[in-house]
Amino acid sequence: MQMLPLRTATSTTGGARMDKDQGKREMEEQLEMVTKAFVDHYYNLFDTNRAALACLYDQTSMLSFEGQKILGADEISRKLSQLPFEQCNHSISTVDCQPSPLVGGILVFVTGNLQLAGEEHQLRFSQMFQLIPTQQASFFVQNDIFRLNYC
Amino acid sequence: MQMLPLRTATSTTGGARMDKDQGKREMEEQLEMVTKAFVDHYYNLFDTNRAALACLYDQTSMLSFEGQKILGADEISRKLSQLPFEQCNHSISTVDCQPSPLVGGILVFVTGNLQLAGEEHQLRFSQMFQLIPTQQASFFVQNDIFRLNYC
Repeated sequence: MQMLPLRTATSTTGGARMDKDQGKREMEEQLEMVTKAFVDHYYNLFDTNRAALACLYDQTSMLSFEGQKILGADEISRKLSQLPFEQCNHSISTVDCQPSPLVGGILVFVTGNLQLAGEEHQLRFSQMFQLIPTQQASFFVQNDIFRLNYC
Repeated sequence: MQMLPLRTATSTTGGARMDKDQGKREMEEQLEMVTKAFVDHYYNLFDTNRAALACLYDQTSMLSFEGQKILGADEISRKLSQLPFEQCNHSISTVDCQPSPLVGGILVFVTGNLQLAGEEHQLRFSQMFQLIPTQQASFFVQNDIFRLNYC
């Protein structure tokens, strides 16, 4: 998975409190930067080249898609490729992120709309991911939960 | 936080494959049992005794509430107590859960409707939690992200 690497937070100001605050701000900025890069990348791939999403997952990844549980990159890729529509377009309403403890991961929470080709109405969805860092200073999707939000 | 403890998966059948499959099923059942207990407990407290939610968080917990980031049990409790409505009633539509890697945590993803007292229309919401085990064989909420889903 090609993404922006998380840089180590550094401080250029003096004073312990300033260092701590600035380090925290820098970490938050990096988290948001990686999250934005991931969200742009994921939904762009989904809408233009769905088969290529496979490279974002690994063999331990889990997808819950409308309640169906799917394990591993191969099965997840098969599921996403076989969804019963050819073309779709995601438009994102909100993106939230938080650090995940210990593992250096990122929790990403997305809400938005999904327009399927040939359908009049958009579908509302929400989705969460847990991104886990790799040894190559990149990330893969460990957890992915998707739900349509019916009104 | 008083919740059902995660028991260690045990197997009563012979054969390595049977053991592995049964162990996996038992782990999934336990995950779903803890998730159901948590979801019931959380939204029941929210609707009947919101101040008591504080005990589900700790000092490192994070809440993102409609994009606002709040850190630590005290601030989270203050935020939830000061929400501008007296009474509300959550009705849950879907609950998904997945194990979180390494930390023994559980990712919980909820969608549902929220009825505020005096309001005609329900609000649609989605919310995710990461539950982390404590040394007392219980769990606390490390991550909490809440969003209303406007139609």
